[in-house]
This record gives sequence, structure tokens and C-alpha cells, in this order.
Amino acid sequence: MNQEKIFEQIKKKQSFLCVGLDSDITKIPQHLLNLSDPVFEFNKAIVDATQQYTIAYKPNLAFYECMGAKGYETFEKTVRYIKAQYPDILVIADAKRGDIGNTSEMYAKAIFEQIPSDAITVSPYMGEDSVTPFLKYGKWVIVLALTSNKGAFDFQFIENENGKLYEQVIKKTMQWATDDQLMFVVGATKAEMLADIRKIIPHHFLLVPGVGAQGGSLQEVAKYGMNKRCGLIVNSSRAIIFADNTTNFAKIASIKAKEVQEEMESLLKSYS
Amino acid sequence: MNQEKIFEQIKKKQSFLCVGLDSDITKIPQHLLNLSDPVFEFNKAIVDATQQYTIAYKPNLAFYECMGAKGYETFEKTVRYIKAQYPDILVIADAKRGDIGNTSEMYAKAIFEQIPSDAITVSPYMGEDSVTPFLKYGKWVIVLALTSNKGAFDFQFIENENGKLYEQVIKKTMQWATDDQLMFVVGATKAEMLADIRKIIPHHFLLVPGVGAQGGSLQEVAKYGMNKRCGLIVNSSRAIIFADNTTNFAKIASIKAKEVQEEMESLLKSYS
Repeated sequence: MNQEKIFEQIKKKQSFLCVGLDSDITKIPQHLLNLSDPVFEFNKAIVDATQQYTIAYKPNLAFYECMGAKGYETFEKTVRYIKAQYPDILVIADAKRGDIGNTSEMYAKAIFEQIPSDAITVSPYMGEDSVTPFLKYGKWVIVLALTSNKGAFDFQFIENENGKLYEQVIKKTMQWATDDQLMFVVGATKAEMLADIRKIIPHHFLLVPGVGAQGGSLQEVAKYGMNKRCGLIVNSSRAIIFADNTTNFAKIASIKAKEVQEEMESLLKSYS
Repeated sequence: MNQEKIFEQIKKKQSFLCVGLDSDITKIPQHLLNLSDPVFEFNKAIVDATQQYTIAYKPNLAFYECMGAKGYETFEKTVRYIKAQYPDILVIADAKRGDIGNTSEMYAKAIFEQIPSDAITVSPYMGEDSVTPFLKYGKWVIVLALTSNKGAFDFQFIENENGKLYEQVIKKTMQWATDDQLMFVVGATKAEMLADIRKIIPHHFLLVPGVGAQGGSLQEVAKYGMNKRCGLIVNSSRAIIFADNTTNFAKIASIKAKEVQEEMESLLKSYS
């Protein structure tokens, strides 16, 4: 699924929304807990109810691994379900992996061979051989650049004559693959920095977390980050998936996703 | 298991060896493949055969996740087996996780609640709130500082007036916890840098990968890195666990581990 295909979906749905499946079992509706795989049933209902408004889903592996092997299976079932039902929707395994070459190869196998994910998030700290094994599959590798959390200020802004660490990560990483293979995570809480990042990578897609519960503004993100092919995938998780925890949860999630989609539609008309 | 307890084990066994359980199913002896959980049987045999020479085991999650949910279960069974049989041996989940606070909390739960691991490796890129959730369990958090791979030179050596990135990672991270909670990964391929690192953190334990297949020298590591409580946990993986792939594999692994232990014994006498 190259840039052009993603942009086609964006145009078709008038949306650049990614729904984060941070499906914490302690936060899903109680009535699901009697089922044999409550988190999978939750994800299935959320996906079916929101798919017409979204171009991507992003299951966050931590929320599955915390339930052990059974949780890991739920993660895998979720990815397989989405790709079987909605093959045009991008599935991003939010794993933030990264290790020496032979180990990253195994993580790549886990995400791209065991299951049909389209993308994985990767941490850049260990450099080129920790990232390139993920590129061999012709899928998307999404490298952490500027994250949306408070701790982003601890190291990502370390600066020398070549720029800030997150800028150096972008500049170096972009040499390892084309903009049809590589995206970057750029936190929405610093939307004005998107303008500077766009000077370095005008054409890459950016995965923007932190709109919604983490407090970013969609308007600002679009203003500073959008390019000719939209170039943005904006994630929202808790504000959509946990908007309601009654038997109505999927319906309410659908309404919340639609609200975001409508805002995105108007932004697409304004900026791209 | 605090520093003192680890040092007691080191003195008792005259060893600071960690065996890395990078148990690639394509490299284990063929005769195991007929069993219902070949990698677990392999790990069990390796652990039973080497435990008298080692103070730690380090299962590397990638080699389990690449087999999907079943592999994740093998990882969990391995950790449980080691802690049930050999409670004094440190089990390090080599996961290199790190995400925003609420997500790191879930990874911590996976590693410290679901299973009785003693330690986890963590990537520092996302800063304080990505690391501190792992500290709440009173177990060990092992932060990547200077890794042993070629890609280490891409970002870890970025330098400004406050030092190199890996030095800044150490200086900042050490403020978040005591040396009874925190260790650092320091690659053995740059042993002379251990002397500089020891100026910043004289008392912390260092987890040193890269001795053996990755090419570091144990002599050099001990010379530059050892402190009064040894302060080193040196990992060897492939050179021990894949030394032989016949039905004799466990016996040969035991011999290889004993060889390393004997070298460590003489180094402990020379330097600590």
C-alpha cells in the first residue's frame, strides 16, 4: 500500500483518521467480559462501527501483551480480522521495536510474516541496522521522531550544529528508504514544529498521535503539516473507543469517529 | 534482588555470565522439532545444563514473538520455569520497550505482573515518562545507553556541550532511580569507553552484550568496567546456546559456559 493508495483512501473517505486500538481490558464495557475473548469482541465491534470514517487502525501491542500470550493472540486476531474484512484500511502495529539487526529481523517476522500488518512503529535509538530489517517487506516503517509526551523533551531536543536529535533522526533515516516505505511519528502537541519538519520532509506521511486525549489540535496539525497528498495520518484512541462504556459503545464510537471525519473533510478542503 | 544479592551470586558462582536465550527455532537441534514446544524444551535443557555457571538469563522477546502467540507463550513459560527452578538467578526480559506513560505501564504489567521477570531492557528515546512506569515494581530497569551494533554510531554519539547522547542518557536517567533499580546496557565492542562511563556511574551494574559472536573481549570489559561489586553482567548467547546442534547440545553448552565462567573467575580475582 504505497502513498498513492493511502491518498486514494483519504480522498474516498474524506478522512485521515487512524483509530488507536489501545483496548485496555479494564476500560471496555463490562457486558463484554463474559465472552471468551472480550478485547477481540470489543475491537471487532469498534472496527465495524468506525471503518467507514477511518483509513487506519493502530493496535498498541502493550495493551495486548499485558494479558500475556492470550492477549498476544487477541492482537494477532485483531490484525487478521481487519485485513480480511477491510483490506484497504492500513493496519499499524504500534510496537516501537528496535534492536540489533538479527533481532529486528525477528520482530519484523512477527509483525509482517505472522500477521498481515501494513506498518510498524520503530524506535531509532540503535540506528540503521535496527531499522533496515523492517524495510525488507515492502511495508511501512514508521520511525519515532518527535513524540507527544512530556519525556520527549528529555533527549529528542538535544541539539548541536546539525540540529536537534529528532531532526537528525529524520535526516539520517530518510536516507535509508523512500517516502513510499517510511513515515515518521510527530507528536501533535507541538504542531508549530510541523512547519519546520515539513521543510526537511515535504513529501513523507506523518503519523500524528496525541489528538484528543493527549490534547493536540487537529486544526493546527492540518495547517502546519498537510501536503499535496494530505501527508497526515492522525490518531485518536481513547476519545473514540472509550467514549461510552454501555452496550451502546460501538454506536457512540461511530458517532465520535464521524465527528472527527467531518472536521477532517473540511480541513482537506481548506489545505490540500 | 538488589545489588548486594546479585554480588552474592557472583561471588558464589565466581561468574558474571548472562546466557542470552535468543532461541531461534531455525537454529535449535532438529531432534527437538517433533516435541510440542521445541523452543521451550531447548531453553529448559540449556538452562539446566548451564545454571551452575550463570547468574542471569536473558530471553530476547523477538525470537519468541516471531512465532506469534504460541511463541509468546514459550517466552512466558521459559521465565516461569527459570524462576521456579532457580530463584536466585536473574531473569532479564530483553524487550527494549518504551512508550508514553500509560503504554509503558502496560508493558511493565506484561513483564512484571504476568510473569516473574526480574528485569527489563528499555529504550530511552521517549524520556522519563517512558521509563518510570517500569520502576514501580521494585525490579530492575536496564536502559539502553551505548549499544554494541554498527548503528550505535548513527545517533548515540551525537554530541554537544553536555556530552554525547549516550552520556546524557546515563546522566539524566540516573536521576530517576537508585543504582539498586537501574542498570545500563553498554556494548562490549567499545570496551575502552567503559572507563569514561565508570566516571559517571561508578556503582551501577552494566549489562554488557556483544561478548562472543558480536566480538567483544571479556578481558577488556573487566579491565575497564569492573567495580568493587563486580558491576558487570556480561551476556553471551549464540556462542553458548548454539555451540552444538546434535543431541549433545546441552552438554556442549555447559562446557562453553564453564569455559567463560573460568575466565570470569580469574578476572574477578584480578580486578575486583
